Amino acid sequence: MDDLSKRGFLAGGVSAGLLAAAPFEALAQAKAEGRKLGYAMLGLGYYATRIIMPRFAECEHARLTGLVSGTPEKLKTFGEQYGVPEKSRYSYETFDRILDDPSVDIVYVVTPNSLHRTFTERAAKAGKHVMCEKPMATSAADAQAMVRACKAAGRKLMIGYRSRFQPHNVEAIRLARSGAVGPIRTIVADHGFTAGDPNQWRLKKALSGGGSLMDIGIYSLNATRYLTGEEPVAVNALESTDRSDIRFKEVEDTIAFQLAFPSGATANCFSTYSANCNRYRVSGPKGWIDLDPATPYEGQAMRTRIGGKTETWTPPTGAKSQFAGQLDHFADCILTGREPIVPGEEGVKDMKVIEAIYRAAREGRTVKL
Amino acid sequence: MDDLSKRGFLAGGVSAGLLAAAPFEALAQAKAEGRKLGYAMLGLGYYATRIIMPRFAECEHARLTGLVSGTPEKLKTFGEQYGVPEKSRYSYETFDRILDDPSVDIVYVVTPNSLHRTFTERAAKAGKHVMCEKPMATSAADAQAMVRACKAAGRKLMIGYRSRFQPHNVEAIRLARSGAVGPIRTIVADHGFTAGDPNQWRLKKALSGGGSLMDIGIYSLNATRYLTGEEPVAVNALESTDRSDIRFKEVEDTIAFQLAFPSGATANCFSTYSANCNRYRVSGPKGWIDLDPATPYEGQAMRTRIGGKTETWTPPTGAKSQFAGQLDHFADCILTGREPIVPGEEGVKDMKVIEAIYRAAREGRTVKL
Repeated sequence: MDDLSKRGFLAGGVSAGLLAAAPFEALAQAKAEGRKLGYAMLGLGYYATRIIMPRFAECEHARLTGLVSGTPEKLKTFGEQYGVPEKSRYSYETFDRILDDPSVDIVYVVTPNSLHRTFTERAAKAGKHVMCEKPMATSAADAQAMVRACKAAGRKLMIGYRSRFQPHNVEAIRLARSGAVGPIRTIVADHGFTAGDPNQWRLKKALSGGGSLMDIGIYSLNATRYLTGEEPVAVNALESTDRSDIRFKEVEDTIAFQLAFPSGATANCFSTYSANCNRYRVSGPKGWIDLDPATPYEGQAMRTRIGGKTETWTPPTGAKSQFAGQLDHFADCILTGREPIVPGEEGVKDMKVIEAIYRAAREGRTVKL
Repeated sequence: MDDLSKRGFLAGGVSAGLLAAAPFEALAQAKAEGRKLGYAMLGLGYYATRIIMPRFAECEHARLTGLVSGTPEKLKTFGEQYGVPEKSRYSYETFDRILDDPSVDIVYVVTPNSLHRTFTERAAKAGKHVMCEKPMATSAADAQAMVRACKAAGRKLMIGYRSRFQPHNVEAIRLARSGAVGPIRTIVADHGFTAGDPNQWRLKKALSGGGSLMDIGIYSLNATRYLTGEEPVAVNALESTDRSDIRFKEVEDTIAFQLAFPSGATANCFSTYSANCNRYRVSGPKGWIDLDPATPYEGQAMRTRIGGKTETWTPPTGAKSQFAGQLDHFADCILTGREPIVPGEEGVKDMKVIEAIYRAAREGRTVKL
């Protein structure tokens, strides 16, 4: 069995059902063979090159095998640095030829938000599985189209919700859902940074689709959903943007939003480009779980207060980084025919709430979901 | 000049303008004489007897000279403990005779909320200045009536917003308003505790006027107002109450509210009877100010992060307690003819916002103020 047909067998949509019955065998086999799935990074900006790419070295099931960029110098520099051969370096024009590149199993889309949909669709059409950064798209409709495109192509789609693979967050989820604080009653989640360069793509609506909520506030939103394991049913929001500030001509600065969950849990969240914050707290009658910072690239800190006792939690030494965890998880899912814990549908859910938040702010009313 | 006529001169509404021109002389004179104004405590529950009354010993301008209670044993016990003579111990029936008691300058109303109005009005009618606990009343209309009653009687009215005299809070206000964090962009304020005994008056609507918002959430609200020095112009809210819980048959448990301020600052606040929390954070582009806990009886802790540097702030040793500060401030205002920093009007403002919060939650819309 050559590499391509093996990949076809292991990763194909048709065989997923079969593999689901024997995931451990398949994984064990791949591991035994030392086989790693190949990722092509699409969009070689800061996050891809500085944060993600160095982490392949840490991966058990993933390796970097392709590069896609509009900048030839980047293709050359990073191609040489990571040993990606010229034949697996693509421009956005030549990208679709990746169809014929057996070294690439997965395309990881790390472009400005408004390009996520088109590259996800093109990657799926080229027979590749797709990892796409958050926010998944600039609208729920686009996000849903992406899910459909990947399904039609028989390929998997996962969204880059790295915190789901970050040890402190994983422990917070476990504690919160295990009833450690009693029924969750309140969540406070604040994410923001002070936006600098007014020319960055994040501040251009055509590229970003929106302001701080799309970029950083989505961490507050996503945290409320993963901590509760529930979907919000009602949303309030207040936006505060100084439109005379050159940075905020096109997108919102600060948006404060509230979410009501079916269990009775309520969340107060901030999203802002005018203050540095990155934290959440989950509370109930028995205590609270506090992450501050909660979702940075590194440096998470966790305190709990349960039964009147305040404690600091630290992960076991040598725990895999969130980045390697995310890359490996998707490869593992493909190898074993399972669905990722953060599939395209997860991104769609966030996009629907994001649209409800904008609507609530605009219309000055509670929006029901 | 005997004690009564001197008090009449110094404290009377008519002479306030005159005194305002020479407050320091009057204060200096009172201080020189070692004269302290007399407080009668009305309502001898936990807060009055355990928290406030022991603090008169610390006061420069205030002393305990009267007691009002429906429980004769309490009058006897505390009267003896604090040296309040029998003639200055009153039942609620005999209370109005306090008119003829020259030892009492101020009545401090510490009853369940729904009784604040009537006792404030009776005290003013008896010629006494009034300190009234928060929430000032159970409606904005009642609160306004209390302001009118005291004005009509030519007596001062102050609300027991003790945090305004608490060193960490005073420093936070100074920092926040001085622009230490830049323009204030976000405030998070959370106050709550787990309500126990289902029979306590706080959970009876006829006595409390409402649930956690009236009792503990008002600290979140008041903090947003004193930190910004502004009045909110728009309010959102989500209520979450399990009405099958015997504690919450009559009043709300958790209410999450959002406030928009004219400067563009936005606040996310929690008020709850289902989790222990007592903190706020004020943020702007230059950093943040963090109090956790923020408004307990004691034990406040403050951290700031400004210009990339995290610091802990502690008050100078020997700083006066918030309780003595509050008692002395009102006495000082009366002695010098000044208005308290938290007059009845301050309580009215909170009550108006509280009503807007309830309305926003009930009607599912942003309420403008």
